Amino acid sequence: MDAMPTATEILAANNDAVTAATRCLDRIAAREEAVRAWAYLDPAAALKTAVALDAGPRGALHGVPIGVKDVILTRDMPTRYNSPIHDEPATSADAGCVAVLRAAGALMLGKTETVEFAATGTKAPTRNPHALDHTPGGSSSGSAAAVADGHVPIALATQTGGSIIRPASYCGIWGIKPTWGLVSNEGAKSFAPSLDTIGWYARSADDLSLILDRFDPEPARSATLAGARIGIARTPYWAEAGPATRDAIARTEQALRNAGAVIEEVALPDDEWSDIARVHDLVMHAEGGAAFLAADVTGGDGLHANMRAMVSARTASNRQRLVEAYDKAAAWRRAFDALAGGYDAILTPSTVAEAPRGLAATGDYLFNGMWTLLHVPCVNVPGCIAANGLPVGVTITGPRFADRRVLAMAAAIGALLSG
Amino acid sequence: MDAMPTATEILAANNDAVTAATRCLDRIAAREEAVRAWAYLDPAAALKTAVALDAGPRGALHGVPIGVKDVILTRDMPTRYNSPIHDEPATSADAGCVAVLRAAGALMLGKTETVEFAATGTKAPTRNPHALDHTPGGSSSGSAAAVADGHVPIALATQTGGSIIRPASYCGIWGIKPTWGLVSNEGAKSFAPSLDTIGWYARSADDLSLILDRFDPEPARSATLAGARIGIARTPYWAEAGPATRDAIARTEQALRNAGAVIEEVALPDDEWSDIARVHDLVMHAEGGAAFLAADVTGGDGLHANMRAMVSARTASNRQRLVEAYDKAAAWRRAFDALAGGYDAILTPSTVAEAPRGLAATGDYLFNGMWTLLHVPCVNVPGCIAANGLPVGVTITGPRFADRRVLAMAAAIGALLSG
Repeated sequence: MDAMPTATEILAANNDAVTAATRCLDRIAAREEAVRAWAYLDPAAALKTAVALDAGPRGALHGVPIGVKDVILTRDMPTRYNSPIHDEPATSADAGCVAVLRAAGALMLGKTETVEFAATGTKAPTRNPHALDHTPGGSSSGSAAAVADGHVPIALATQTGGSIIRPASYCGIWGIKPTWGLVSNEGAKSFAPSLDTIGWYARSADDLSLILDRFDPEPARSATLAGARIGIARTPYWAEAGPATRDAIARTEQALRNAGAVIEEVALPDDEWSDIARVHDLVMHAEGGAAFLAADVTGGDGLHANMRAMVSARTASNRQRLVEAYDKAAAWRRAFDALAGGYDAILTPSTVAEAPRGLAATGDYLFNGMWTLLHVPCVNVPGCIAANGLPVGVTITGPRFADRRVLAMAAAIGALLSG
Repeated sequence: MDAMPTATEILAANNDAVTAATRCLDRIAAREEAVRAWAYLDPAAALKTAVALDAGPRGALHGVPIGVKDVILTRDMPTRYNSPIHDEPATSADAGCVAVLRAAGALMLGKTETVEFAATGTKAPTRNPHALDHTPGGSSSGSAAAVADGHVPIALATQTGGSIIRPASYCGIWGIKPTWGLVSNEGAKSFAPSLDTIGWYARSADDLSLILDRFDPEPARSATLAGARIGIARTPYWAEAGPATRDAIARTEQALRNAGAVIEEVALPDDEWSDIARVHDLVMHAEGGAAFLAADVTGGDGLHANMRAMVSARTASNRQRLVEAYDKAAAWRRAFDALAGGYDAILTPSTVAEAPRGLAATGDYLFNGMWTLLHVPCVNVPGCIAANGLPVGVTITGPRFADRRVLAMAAAIGALLSG
């Protein structure tokens, strides 16, 4: 596993696509029975695509194998959403994000397991590579586990609640949820359009940046921690944080102080902000009512009761609450940007704790939903370990569209934590 | 043309799908050469689908023929976006809105002409049925002309700037742009996700309501004009309104007074609101930069320069302006809802004037973009006529999610204007 190369290493070695793909497929063959990260994988077809890539011009991501969460459309593989409603291979155009990466020479290796419709309902069968009886988190379960276990260097994911950052924290990998709107959602399953965000996983900060290069016209940058102003946002939910999360924040804080950073507590006034997780939930479920209407009227009992309940809840009073939630969210976005603009980065928990035991639940998104609602970029930095040996991450965030700055600070902090 | 039935009439007559489809196909055969509303139409395949519908249970929209704007995915017809990038028949799952209507027994008859990607660039070849040397408006050119000319009773459309309401005004038909988020955009081309809205055209207010029944859980209602409080929002752009638009507003105002409504001018303070069309444009073009990235990197010169320019304009300074625009828009939404909540309906222009001559330009969306930005429901009410004999509409609007109320008031006003 340690020997599996990152995307940056594959490119530096000038590997051909067939070599890179073969290495991934061998690793998957050895590990998939245990990890169960893949919803669809056709090794022969993937190798054929790799051969075609090697015969053409070399793009910026030549031959980099990528796992695609199975709620994102691919022209050459089915998309099934972990739903019995879509039980036949579908053909379609590529989702926008897939088309962009493919145009740069990346190889879409297969589709990764997901919670039903990247929402709620049937869970992925995927296991946490660090402890197979623990969840990898969800809904991007397969993408996170595949990257953590060395099946692919990069995997695409989506977040509406905490579906990118939480699995990254549980699986001990790098994950980015970019600013809402930075990457087009076209061709990814719609759940809550004002929240849905496409992002990705990697085993290094450089690899996150390599993919960001395709979407963000601002150039990559580096960051210095000496003298940097770092805000710690414990959020209104700090009382819920378990020992591993408290330790991760404390360890990161101490490492930052040792590196010469200036640390301040970021005040999100409790009386105004304590409601933010509930407001996020409200928006997510209300928008889900429109998103899942088609599956509800066409899929009948094939759609999980959790999503049918969202459709049934489209009442006048709930819509009035939705409008109020939109207006609150907009005010919070503005306030947080102003606040975060005064720091080089904001440090905040990624998850309540390390990955819980069992696969029946994918963990809590309490520390993620608020940032999804705020539209701000979040990077999970791995490197901390719970008492039971499982990984737990911390989140670096900042104002909307400060993705490059947030990622640069996260990279510097990650180097500290692993150093 | 006058003899072509509305959807409500088709359902009341208990028509079978084959009869309804045949009548539409005959009308199209006689008129398409002049109007050019259809991007894709396979009469034999449509009739086969109608036969299958008649063999099954009768849904609430049994056999109602619907035209689908060619930026909305259909499982049984290609989607080409009026773009050379998509020159092959694509197969895909139905867009959410199509799946919902199909599940109710509606017949997707064909795909209607659109401006390239429902955005900007190559125009539809469609002509205004009221004067073939005039534009029907855009970007939903084919859907509006097809309904106006009796090809289909209903057609699906999309609006990001003014692409539903403007063609409705120019073609003298009913059109609704629902509240943003009421109808899922899944499977429709993404241009600016915080603005993109699916709506539809019809030749009666009852028909608009019949389709709204599938998406809005609130029941249809009727409205009384006697004693109703109607606000007239001339908007900061009233000085741009031409004679036909001024006459249409004046005639509607007088008819409302005669019916016993109470009329007030709605104050959108010029110093605060004069910027709203520019802010709408800014959001639309900035979000378009992300939406068209995939077409830009894969389609090369096949993508119109207007959209390539949006991709190139994704700079840090433009993103800062975008964030400021988001925050302004959010404040305006809240302010307008509070204002509009004090009225039974808001009356405002649909277009600067009647349809301009020529097909090279599709007219001005000056009076539409602000309402798209505000996310509020808009209904175009036909019934007024310019000095040159061309139709011009007026818009009825109201707070977010007041779609049923707005449509009921629009129906009552439409009855006045045609009475």
